[in-house]
Amino acid sequence: MIGHLPSWKNGAAKSAILDFVAAISAPGEDFVPAAERIAVFGNDGTLWCEQPMQAQVFFAQSRAERLADADPSLKERQPFKAFLEHDLPAIHALGKQSVFEFALAIHSGVTVDDFTRIAKRWLDTATHPATHRHYTQMIYQPQLELMRYLRAQGFKTFIVSAGGADFIRAFAQEVYGIPPEQVIGSTVKTRLENGGSRFSLMKLAELDSFDDREAKVQNIGLHIGRRPVFAFGNSDGDLAMMRYTLAGSGKRMAMLLHHDDAAREAAYDREFRLSPLTEALDRADEFGFRMVSMKNDWEAVYAFDK
Amino acid sequence: MIGHLPSWKNGAAKSAILDFVAAISAPGEDFVPAAERIAVFGNDGTLWCEQPMQAQVFFAQSRAERLADADPSLKERQPFKAFLEHDLPAIHALGKQSVFEFALAIHSGVTVDDFTRIAKRWLDTATHPATHRHYTQMIYQPQLELMRYLRAQGFKTFIVSAGGADFIRAFAQEVYGIPPEQVIGSTVKTRLENGGSRFSLMKLAELDSFDDREAKVQNIGLHIGRRPVFAFGNSDGDLAMMRYTLAGSGKRMAMLLHHDDAAREAAYDREFRLSPLTEALDRADEFGFRMVSMKNDWEAVYAFDK
Repeated sequence: MIGHLPSWKNGAAKSAILDFVAAISAPGEDFVPAAERIAVFGNDGTLWCEQPMQAQVFFAQSRAERLADADPSLKERQPFKAFLEHDLPAIHALGKQSVFEFALAIHSGVTVDDFTRIAKRWLDTATHPATHRHYTQMIYQPQLELMRYLRAQGFKTFIVSAGGADFIRAFAQEVYGIPPEQVIGSTVKTRLENGGSRFSLMKLAELDSFDDREAKVQNIGLHIGRRPVFAFGNSDGDLAMMRYTLAGSGKRMAMLLHHDDAAREAAYDREFRLSPLTEALDRADEFGFRMVSMKNDWEAVYAFDK
Repeated sequence: MIGHLPSWKNGAAKSAILDFVAAISAPGEDFVPAAERIAVFGNDGTLWCEQPMQAQVFFAQSRAERLADADPSLKERQPFKAFLEHDLPAIHALGKQSVFEFALAIHSGVTVDDFTRIAKRWLDTATHPATHRHYTQMIYQPQLELMRYLRAQGFKTFIVSAGGADFIRAFAQEVYGIPPEQVIGSTVKTRLENGGSRFSLMKLAELDSFDDREAKVQNIGLHIGRRPVFAFGNSDGDLAMMRYTLAGSGKRMAMLLHHDDAAREAAYDREFRLSPLTEALDRADEFGFRMVSMKNDWEAVYAFDK
């Protein structure tokens, strides 16, 4: 096993991963056939940085600015006002679901194809306010290694995120090696437009699914049709998915990332209004979650740290 | 190319498939990267027999019989009465959406895991009223070869069906080589049940998506997140998906199976109330569909014919 997971420190968390994969790969009672090796990951805060707010919220902010250029009356209307003034406390105070619903609905009237182009362009140019790095550079290197390792062991890796599916699909293949059809996320309803030869899907303002908490499990049923054997999350939004994963028969694993690394990334849990970690932290032992400490279990956080 | 598609007769349809795949595989302006090689297939009437009614409707009939054993009052209630009396004209008269909604809703109160077990058991035992074969033997051999050929050329094959996703997932891997997450179908809403350690998804009676016509395109957007380059259908329910496929840029193909083979399978199109083929047939040339004649283009229909 030497050489796997180089950005994970040698210790309990890394050993737990290697032991789990060894156990389900070897002939015996813990064996899991390759077709059943389904691994699910949250995205914001599990695979990349979500501080001071999720990249998609910054993306929505840039869209709000464009819309306000065309219609200045938006500047006085909430929640546009909070977004346009970069008023972080006001945005946080809206709470996770309201912020994401706004961030999804703000792209209504754009086709899925055009949205993908717009999102890619934004990701290529926008930078994080603190690190001045592109958001796609703020991917956790240990998680890239973990997903690559799991895939090499026959796993299929899926993202199951409260973030917008179309937004994550714009970079998941290139950055994570995860194809669009393995990205499950929040969605708005669409309308099929048939403008002669166009035939495209138009994004509407109406929410179809806010893929958080119980909905993550329902969407795993809808999209994957099998119970995962491995889950990785970092907030109460991932709690149901992690418990659902562990509740199947046979050997399973659910890991919970704790952001306790103020020096290299951030230290936060229950106070983060845009995705709090409270119950999953308090009851981690009871539920059988394996805690992962960013500070103690990861050798490096980002590739650019190395 | 000799050796591919042995159950397809040498002729225009087979050549069109081989030419299409050769064109998108070769370097040049028609080249499609492997990651974009998405192929979508209807299920009932495209991959297996749907006469005199879809297998799932027979499955619903067997469920109706069990429910009526427990509650005899159902015998006098429609549409139970039609199903219990095997009243084919009455079932057909209900129309496609009503019949499928009933066939989906009748399994409410069953967890997804239990449903899969029940469906597998039914598929292992039930037989077709005319051929006395298991339904999973009534798969079109040329289509198995076509899907295998496309996958060998880097395609990812998906099913996009008005049939229930969970029903098709119960046999798609074994019979078609298509994993559950590549099966898109009609769905009911689910509720996450947490009975202590159980944590399972309970099927509800309420429809979530009837995956037919425009909804097929919307669900391709939801599940696949990319426009297919190849589509195969057999009814007006596939029309939108086939046109959406052809409307993308670059080389694309959409094939329409015509059931014109009374001797080996069945001859039907516009009169089949449970899935009519009318507009797609009348406007096939205008839309650029490639017609496939079961009678003239297929050397064999079923594996047991050979």
